[in-house]
Amino acid sequence: MNKIPVYEREVQYYETDQMQIVHHSNYIRWFEEARLMAMKFLGAPYDVLEEKGIVIPVLAASAVYRAPFRFGDIFQVRLKIVKFNGLKMDIEYEIYNKDSGILSTTGQTSHAFLGQDRKPLRLKKEFPEVYTVFQNAVCQD
Amino acid sequence: MNKIPVYEREVQYYETDQMQIVHHSNYIRWFEEARLMAMKFLGAPYDVLEEKGIVIPVLAASAVYRAPFRFGDIFQVRLKIVKFNGLKMDIEYEIYNKDSGILSTTGQTSHAFLGQDRKPLRLKKEFPEVYTVFQNAVCQD
Amino acid sequence: MNKIPVYEREVQYYETDQMQIVHHSNYIRWFEEARLMAMKFLGAPYDVLEEKGIVIPVLAASAVYRAPFRFGDIFQVRLKIVKFNGLKMDIEYEIYNKDSGILSTTGQTSHAFLGQDRKPLRLKKEFPEVYTVFQNAVCQD
Amino acid sequence: MNKIPVYEREVQYYETDQMQIVHHSNYIRWFEEARLMAMKFLGAPYDVLEEKGIVIPVLAASAVYRAPFRFGDIFQVRLKIVKFNGLKMDIEYEIYNKDSGILSTTGQTSHAFLGQDRKPLRLKKEFPEVYTVFQNAVCQD
Repeated sequence: MNKIPVYEREVQYYETDQMQIVHHSNYIRWFEEARLMAMKFLGAPYDVLEEKGIVIPVLAASAVYRAPFRFGDIFQVRLKIVKFNGLKMDIEYEIYNKDSGILSTTGQTSHAFLGQDRKPLRLKKEFPEVYTVFQNAVCQD
Repeated sequence: MNKIPVYEREVQYYETDQMQIVHHSNYIRWFEEARLMAMKFLGAPYDVLEEKGIVIPVLAASAVYRAPFRFGDIFQVRLKIVKFNGLKMDIEYEIYNKDSGILSTTGQTSHAFLGQDRKPLRLKKEFPEVYTVFQNAVCQD
Repeated sequence: MNKIPVYEREVQYYETDQMQIVHHSNYIRWFEEARLMAMKFLGAPYDVLEEKGIVIPVLAASAVYRAPFRFGDIFQVRLKIVKFNGLKMDIEYEIYNKDSGILSTTGQTSHAFLGQDRKPLRLKKEFPEVYTVFQNAVCQD
Repeated sequence: MNKIPVYEREVQYYETDQMQIVHHSNYIRWFEEARLMAMKFLGAPYDVLEEKGIVIPVLAASAVYRAPFRFGDIFQVRLKIVKFNGLKMDIEYEIYNKDSGILSTTGQTSHAFLGQDRKPLRLKKEFPEVYTVFQNAVCQD
């Protein structure tokens, strides 16, 4: 299995709020940024999946905020796919401050695999090559 | 012609940035909020137009920021359709601070009327009832 | 205890994504909109608290998405303060589709009460009038 | 004068709307992303300026949308400072689609240099080192 790389970028000014820190809703977007990078890395880019008729909506999302990010900081997202059965997928995230090394935010998202009709797909049968990508990427820790 | 009502709401916390004021990109969204309210008021709600196969993308947008908004302020958007010919439409906006009455932001957007194939529509011929709505709403000042 | 009113507004176009539904990060913002409305209703508007030197950052947020919202829908947020001890506060949210009555999204946020130095406040001692507001608003269900 | 590098990144999923293209308000944010990268490159990072007590709010912003961006596209922003006199600054932007090379969006922003009291600064006198950075970066075309 190929190791999913760390997703890294700088905090944008428009991501701050008047508390002088990144608004908490943005971390949910950072999870998405890292998740879509990971899918591309694994060989299943999300735009290609959508073209095949596969959509992967978010069923649940959660975040725990331990330390805030500020404008100018660089964040790093490490994620792992902790569960996948062809119907659903759970992903866990850790967001680190690159300079301090501090673990700033942790989180999890859950996803379903649906067809264009928004009905559940039998991924293993209908898209075995996509099934294999995610099956092979499940974290074995 | 029915007078388009003023669009009004409170500033949200997540719309502020660390300069303690509303981030300037949000005013472009406030123009959209007011524009879609106006289309609904005029009898051409945007979701209904999209169902008919009409999309109205933004060709250009501009804003001049005279005075900032802060969290807790209430803003009011006054808009007028200043040009419409069945192919394109120009709208002008004024955003006021409700409490102080100060004109805070002015702006303009330009729009095209396209079909689902993203090709220009002949609105007057293909959707005369929609054409009439916008034609009657053009400001006569 | 006064009953906290329902927070209601229309879905904005810019809140949708190319899956034709509201992007999941926005529900975290809707929780905030409802929370700040509730604080205003209860007599502790957030801008006034910030002026007093009280900030109430989010320690954790979670959402479970049962049914999506689309552009044109009206959503209603019902919230209750389920825990408050002067140091921390937990709030639960339910978001309903106004027209269908369907419970679309549930969620929870946790908060701390901090001073301008970002250190924990002893709210009961330092701001007893604010303590009382939240203490009286805790849901007794 | 050092040439300001091109700012480049991928379109994020949450930047799309239900028209299946990037929502037009995001281009105003892309201008900011490129502008802050440029200031950092020139030796005047915005977080450092804010620490010195200099804020540079946006007085006006405009964009002309020629061709849309979609999820998965990579955009490139080229900018030039077209005017600077120590009190105000105008910047022009061109956004290209990296793969097609198409010029997708053009725009302009205008800025003031203010102190923490939000009053105009005499940059040349009060912060000559910052004045020089911008003065040297003005495009000579």
